[in-house]
Amino acid sequence: MNPAIGVCYYPEHWPEDWWESDAARMAEVGIKVVRIGEFAWSKLEPTPGDLQLDWMIRAMDVLGRQGLQVIVGTPTATPPRWMIDKHPDMLAVDAQGRRKGFGSRRHYDFSHLGYREESARITRILSDALSDHPALGGWQTDNEYGCHGTTYSYSPAALDGFRLWLENKYGTIAALNQAWGTVFWSMDYNRFDQIELPNLTVTEVLPIHDLDFRRYSSDQVAAFNKVQYDILKAARPDLPVIHNFMSRYTEFDHYDVAETLDVASWDSYPIGHLAVSDEPEETKRAYLRQGDPDNAAFHHDHYRTVGHGRWWIMEQQPGPVNWAQANPDPLPGMARLWAWEAFAHGAEVVSYFRWRQAPFAQEQMHAGLHRPDREPAPAYFEAKQVAEELAATGIGGTAAKGRIALVFDYQSEWAWDVQPQAAGFKHGTHVRALYAAFRKHGLDVEILSPKTKTFDGFDIVAIPGLFAWTDELREAISDFDGHLLLGPRTGSKTQNFSFPARLGPDLPQNLLDLKVSRVDSLPPGIEVPVKGGGSARLWREKIEGGAEVVMEDVEGVPVLVSQGKVFYLTASGDRALMQRVADYLIAEANMPVLTIPAGVRCRVRGGFRIYVNYGATAQMLTKADDETAYVVGGADIPAAGVTVVKLATAG
Amino acid sequence: MNPAIGVCYYPEHWPEDWWESDAARMAEVGIKVVRIGEFAWSKLEPTPGDLQLDWMIRAMDVLGRQGLQVIVGTPTATPPRWMIDKHPDMLAVDAQGRRKGFGSRRHYDFSHLGYREESARITRILSDALSDHPALGGWQTDNEYGCHGTTYSYSPAALDGFRLWLENKYGTIAALNQAWGTVFWSMDYNRFDQIELPNLTVTEVLPIHDLDFRRYSSDQVAAFNKVQYDILKAARPDLPVIHNFMSRYTEFDHYDVAETLDVASWDSYPIGHLAVSDEPEETKRAYLRQGDPDNAAFHHDHYRTVGHGRWWIMEQQPGPVNWAQANPDPLPGMARLWAWEAFAHGAEVVSYFRWRQAPFAQEQMHAGLHRPDREPAPAYFEAKQVAEELAATGIGGTAAKGRIALVFDYQSEWAWDVQPQAAGFKHGTHVRALYAAFRKHGLDVEILSPKTKTFDGFDIVAIPGLFAWTDELREAISDFDGHLLLGPRTGSKTQNFSFPARLGPDLPQNLLDLKVSRVDSLPPGIEVPVKGGGSARLWREKIEGGAEVVMEDVEGVPVLVSQGKVFYLTASGDRALMQRVADYLIAEANMPVLTIPAGVRCRVRGGFRIYVNYGATAQMLTKADDETAYVVGGADIPAAGVTVVKLATAG
Amino acid sequence: MNPAIGVCYYPEHWPEDWWESDAARMAEVGIKVVRIGEFAWSKLEPTPGDLQLDWMIRAMDVLGRQGLQVIVGTPTATPPRWMIDKHPDMLAVDAQGRRKGFGSRRHYDFSHLGYREESARITRILSDALSDHPALGGWQTDNEYGCHGTTYSYSPAALDGFRLWLENKYGTIAALNQAWGTVFWSMDYNRFDQIELPNLTVTEVLPIHDLDFRRYSSDQVAAFNKVQYDILKAARPDLPVIHNFMSRYTEFDHYDVAETLDVASWDSYPIGHLAVSDEPEETKRAYLRQGDPDNAAFHHDHYRTVGHGRWWIMEQQPGPVNWAQANPDPLPGMARLWAWEAFAHGAEVVSYFRWRQAPFAQEQMHAGLHRPDREPAPAYFEAKQVAEELAATGIGGTAAKGRIALVFDYQSEWAWDVQPQAAGFKHGTHVRALYAAFRKHGLDVEILSPKTKTFDGFDIVAIPGLFAWTDELREAISDFDGHLLLGPRTGSKTQNFSFPARLGPDLPQNLLDLKVSRVDSLPPGIEVPVKGGGSARLWREKIEGGAEVVMEDVEGVPVLVSQGKVFYLTASGDRALMQRVADYLIAEANMPVLTIPAGVRCRVRGGFRIYVNYGATAQMLTKADDETAYVVGGADIPAAGVTVVKLATAG
Ligand SMILES: [Zn+2]
Ligand SMILES: [Zn+2]
Ligand SMILES: [Zn+2]
Repeated sequence: MNPAIGVCYYPEHWPEDWWESDAARMAEVGIKVVRIGEFAWSKLEPTPGDLQLDWMIRAMDVLGRQGLQVIVGTPTATPPRWMIDKHPDMLAVDAQGRRKGFGSRRHYDFSHLGYREESARITRILSDALSDHPALGGWQTDNEYGCHGTTYSYSPAALDGFRLWLENKYGTIAALNQAWGTVFWSMDYNRFDQIELPNLTVTEVLPIHDLDFRRYSSDQVAAFNKVQYDILKAARPDLPVIHNFMSRYTEFDHYDVAETLDVASWDSYPIGHLAVSDEPEETKRAYLRQGDPDNAAFHHDHYRTVGHGRWWIMEQQPGPVNWAQANPDPLPGMARLWAWEAFAHGAEVVSYFRWRQAPFAQEQMHAGLHRPDREPAPAYFEAKQVAEELAATGIGGTAAKGRIALVFDYQSEWAWDVQPQAAGFKHGTHVRALYAAFRKHGLDVEILSPKTKTFDGFDIVAIPGLFAWTDELREAISDFDGHLLLGPRTGSKTQNFSFPARLGPDLPQNLLDLKVSRVDSLPPGIEVPVKGGGSARLWREKIEGGAEVVMEDVEGVPVLVSQGKVFYLTASGDRALMQRVADYLIAEANMPVLTIPAGVRCRVRGGFRIYVNYGATAQMLTKADDETAYVVGGADIPAAGVTVVKLATAG
Repeated sequence: MNPAIGVCYYPEHWPEDWWESDAARMAEVGIKVVRIGEFAWSKLEPTPGDLQLDWMIRAMDVLGRQGLQVIVGTPTATPPRWMIDKHPDMLAVDAQGRRKGFGSRRHYDFSHLGYREESARITRILSDALSDHPALGGWQTDNEYGCHGTTYSYSPAALDGFRLWLENKYGTIAALNQAWGTVFWSMDYNRFDQIELPNLTVTEVLPIHDLDFRRYSSDQVAAFNKVQYDILKAARPDLPVIHNFMSRYTEFDHYDVAETLDVASWDSYPIGHLAVSDEPEETKRAYLRQGDPDNAAFHHDHYRTVGHGRWWIMEQQPGPVNWAQANPDPLPGMARLWAWEAFAHGAEVVSYFRWRQAPFAQEQMHAGLHRPDREPAPAYFEAKQVAEELAATGIGGTAAKGRIALVFDYQSEWAWDVQPQAAGFKHGTHVRALYAAFRKHGLDVEILSPKTKTFDGFDIVAIPGLFAWTDELREAISDFDGHLLLGPRTGSKTQNFSFPARLGPDLPQNLLDLKVSRVDSLPPGIEVPVKGGGSARLWREKIEGGAEVVMEDVEGVPVLVSQGKVFYLTASGDRALMQRVADYLIAEANMPVLTIPAGVRCRVRGGFRIYVNYGATAQMLTKADDETAYVVGGADIPAAGVTVVKLATAG
Repeated sequence: MNPAIGVCYYPEHWPEDWWESDAARMAEVGIKVVRIGEFAWSKLEPTPGDLQLDWMIRAMDVLGRQGLQVIVGTPTATPPRWMIDKHPDMLAVDAQGRRKGFGSRRHYDFSHLGYREESARITRILSDALSDHPALGGWQTDNEYGCHGTTYSYSPAALDGFRLWLENKYGTIAALNQAWGTVFWSMDYNRFDQIELPNLTVTEVLPIHDLDFRRYSSDQVAAFNKVQYDILKAARPDLPVIHNFMSRYTEFDHYDVAETLDVASWDSYPIGHLAVSDEPEETKRAYLRQGDPDNAAFHHDHYRTVGHGRWWIMEQQPGPVNWAQANPDPLPGMARLWAWEAFAHGAEVVSYFRWRQAPFAQEQMHAGLHRPDREPAPAYFEAKQVAEELAATGIGGTAAKGRIALVFDYQSEWAWDVQPQAAGFKHGTHVRALYAAFRKHGLDVEILSPKTKTFDGFDIVAIPGLFAWTDELREAISDFDGHLLLGPRTGSKTQNFSFPARLGPDLPQNLLDLKVSRVDSLPPGIEVPVKGGGSARLWREKIEGGAEVVMEDVEGVPVLVSQGKVFYLTASGDRALMQRVADYLIAEANMPVLTIPAGVRCRVRGGFRIYVNYGATAQMLTKADDETAYVVGGADIPAAGVTVVKLATAG
């Protein structure tokens, strides 16, 4: 499918006599895909068993007549109020032991099997009723799993499920006691039904207790999704089943959920995401109206992998939103830039959220392509421009495969959250810092899962902070002949959250003769300068072994060491150090680089290089050797501008 | 009644043989009014039904013999412990679902009808026993409604009451679903008894759900007060019924409660109030020992309106208090200054809290007119001086009516708390910023309720941030021929917390041809300079329509626009911008102004202008054209000083 | 017993065939004492009544054969999971009303009498089985009472106990009402069973209500300890019973618990303790890898008093720990320095925690003398060096008795926490500031309990912030003819948490003619300079009476006053002011002082003066008149260095 723009639409929010003109205008804009239905359960089934699907079919008829493809969302993120009468215990319980109530959304417990069956029931009903509709283009399962902290529930249902999961995993209680190290504080269990959830304890629980609960909880999300996927695929194997992930919600493993998805999508709200990020205050000011210039790109590359190569933006920020502490208006042009950037990274569809700003309810301050008074909002015109430019350039194909890869691992997100040791050190922040350093030179990057079996075709692979080796990664590195960069903490734990017998990074001596003998963690604000530039911060390791020192800090502690083409970084660094490390690897690997102005980023797709300027001022691009004609914009790229240039050879 | 000073006295705290000398000394000081009894329930009724009112009658006898008028407080803010045995469910439940316990004060739920009946019972008992006492000068209902966050309770009693209130308001569940916009996330209800309180949901509830709960809760406070008022007025229609409000507790509508009051009073603790305010750090330092120079004045003007023209200070800070994080000693003279300032704004009585510092219990570190060792504290002498000065000047009459008015609206307090959109933007802070800007020039200001029907007699009326129009205000503005200033957000919502069809400010085009097309909210610290001076911050609106641009910011976004004598301010501003806007309006309205030194404020009452110096250094006053002789102080006004000057014509 | 080093060892964590070599290596290092068993209950009694003590006896056999003395810890801090099946209500309830769960440690309620009996039972079992073991050197009761905030429980068991305790204390409810001042807000009780725990009230409870609950809770800890002590002493009166206190956990009275201990010990983790302290940011940076140079010393001196002269370090930090926000690596040498400093202050044993870093469970990132891979860690060599140096110097005897004493009082910790009045003012911080000022000149200091009956032998005694006089201290000061320094707040309350009739400091006029007439509390960052240097901050008192002014601030408020040899300090001060006050007293008392470089501290024991350099750079010592030969190190003391010098006369 050629890249296309889409939109999220809620026919149930508007008078039925507006639908025709809405659909006609969508077609005018150049929209190809419309997502509907994901919050409509109470309109589809106002009381238990009273099914009212006609209006939705009529809405699909209207949209289909304009040539629009409809993605139908299963409405399971918003069970109606009567569902709570049927299943009062389907409401999740938070870590403080409080049952969360009805009145917003995502009010269900992934562990509640009764609700899981209700979710199957409504999915089956929708599948039966809509699978053959000619406008149907695919399905979305639920909406934003995990949003609002809903992955974890500390309910009786979760407790039952967790105990069973543990019994399945460990077989005997003795095996669990052994694996968990319960001997430590007399925490031995006699029976599985003595194990509690890891909340409300006097002080911290066993790290593996906490990690196993996170694994269990993640598995429930995957199981919940599979139920819907199996039903939807059975009826229409040809149509994609999609979920719209939220990038900041890493409490469950998105790779695992995507085992039962055809396409990954994510909901991109760059400005609020920068506001809640760990980025320094000056970055937050500089990109207040644009979002972080590397964050959306990282997630584009990430969800391309999650989606086995196929991915969408299901919700694209179109203007100010409602949910951050402050909700600034994006720079004019950003709604276009964000879409172009997504397409550059291989998106099939970028779907704006939403067609029209709702004048009521929780999100009434969230902009759309139209204002609440039905007039077009600025993003309306930007979306139209994108559609026209896509058509004009004829861009297609897939994102060029990067020759640099980074491993991003959800279990490491959890593990370093369970055991920070250095407050402020976060797995994701650390991985993205390295990503940004590589991207600075215009290099395309791939994100890899910890189940990657081979690194063939990469010049550089980085494993920035992996908590424990998987068999797959061990095999991949042993076969790899490119440059391998291991970050601090990598391989420092077993899957049971203990030290490996030979200590981290736990690799065979012939690969890397190195032991991390001690960790020196530092409070924010304390930095140890590295000779030659940059500083170590938050996390420092002291090592022993035969690897060669490449960089060391002013105290003489090795910071980057190597053995052949394997490099090990012992510290988390400031921006300058991360850049030096990336630059060193790029130079070692002899990779050609681009010279790109500050604030500008680029990506190659289908024989085009797409430049986007996240900066608030115009910049001048230098034409690279492989670039021929500008097909959108030019060398002079304004703030929030996009320049597309044709390459001499397809990328 | 001529202005008089009063005091709060607790005969039950002291040996009965101290009462005579205490009363005699009160008379010596010049005190006219004594409030007693509001925490004495356990002494009046030690066990259920065992009434012990004799001591209180004896105390009133003693006070009466010294010519003191006694205000008796109903003791319903402190039900005795045995009451909890009778009504265990009368204790309120907080938003986290925790039942609050006995052991301090205000331990009751406004929704609990059993306790409301107990409150009627004890009020009836006091009324029966004391109504004919010759020393009785009036009543106080309860004490500081809402203090310690007691307006809201999330109890079963509140849930029942809320559902009934909703049914009364909406009639049918379909009407509620429609008004609330429940369609948004499948939040439709089938029955009223499915509706929950708006706490402990997964993410935010419908804004109107939250707002309606606040309206319901406010109504319970008014209903609670009405029960006492009706009983007390039935016995002695001639005596005033008063409540002592807390200015910072805006969770209920003080105007509504005052529908069943004769006099409004408030409890003024300027130093702690500055500490917990949004004022910048430099203001907090500069006025550490004085309080904000505009805050008490604002509330004086406000409660004058709440009290239908009649108002008191029921509790006046006399020295350091006990409840703030830090409790600095006021500058010498402040206990006098605060009283004079209150009288200047029309107070009938300023009652110091309290006669003697208690050596025991929660408030033992709260100063009084005497120390715990019975010696006079500094405020003793300041109070005496005020009484002498009042007598000497013979000041009387009412506060001069200001020609500038500001609308202050409790529903807007709630609405912008429910939907901040820009963290840090607060309705009250925004209103008071404008108040301070007008006051800077010595202009007297009136505060208006949103039920004001006419603006007759005002040169300037400002509606700084009204969430939704009332019929009354719509009528008032359509008839007004003075200068009208509307602030950002004004009229941006309907009473059902939705966008009005024509968007905010939702006025007829002939009055103001303006639509707010977009909101740009900014984090604290980001400012957009306005051409000519000052900056927009936190809240910016982008507008369309035919109004003329008066001020614009450096990005060319209109900041102040006008159509005839109607002005619209699109942003919240820093102090400089708010001052420029006020100055512009004053100039447009051709109002004469005074020149007043920094830190000094003034107000006109009964033919006198009273100057107070909040600053920490002396200042020199310039005699205005309408001023004749200084009757207290002079042109050279010291730190914490008061100057009273006679005007050529009565104000 | 000559000073010796020890270690904490967990045979149950390691294969039994490692025990022999571990024990042999301990002997090689020079270790004399090994603590075991305190978390081993589930291995000693895997199911109820199934006692498995053999392994522990075998471990003691192995250790004993190497000449090691074994301290056996009762395992009551970690009851096994099956205990919760027996006593589900033994789990404590936090102040938010949440029952805390099993899964970590210290999961018991001191008020639960059923668990207290279980604790007696296992203690009796251990005593019966091990009392005659030849390797047994003593007992440790439980582990770190109060750690993780476990002193207070808001459970039904605590409520029952508290009511009974109150009835025992007050006799009649009328007496309690009188003592508590319940009249204040109608808080009178009719019966003891109406009194609630002081949590979850609407606003603050009566200060004495809160304080009595803290006293009650403290008493439960002492009662819990006494049960074990009585059992252990009955069997082996000759062996010491020890508890390992945590210095930061002052919620219970360590003096009271030590009434049933032979030796006090404490667990010293200097680096994390500095991180969580109130010290300014620059101190935290300067001593990031050393800990505060006065904090460990203060606690050494304190626990010497708690232990009636006998004290140990039961757990000594050996490297980075796991529980702080950041866990920096100590400077090389600190594991030696800390031990030497403890010995200098009179420690009998310094026991490193732990022999080997555990590769699993909650503390896997906590360093030991060995790494998880069994290799020695840096502290291994430092511990060995200490053992050798102890032997070589032959240091022994007791710590020299200081001629300066400070009163440290747990009730004052609680009282000023109950009633801060100035947020940021903390009793402990204030006492330690004065301690550091005296120590700056190399003076040895003693810490005294509030039950001290005489100050004989001291030149200077300071009572820095005592909330209420005890009979003992009143007697001690009346007999004292040295220099007495009273700090702000001292004597400002009665034991019932009221003002004394003559106000604070509540001393006879002939001793000190002074009344605190007013308190001026200040927010952090506001300072009032004192003439001559230093500033008052947080707490200022205004006084009256005849004492002579020694120092006053720029506002003319007296800061230090005197009457004969009694001094009163009216304010809490910054470092400079506290130093001036200490210097003034030292000069008045004509005490000889040492000149010591910045970062260096010293203490005298057994005829030696031990210098330790907490600084990060080397310093040069000046040999004092009484010093002869250096026996460890020399005048040039490196960072983290230790110098021991022989004195001309034994100290
Ligand atoms: Zn969304
Ligand atoms: Zn009050
Ligand atoms: Zn410990």
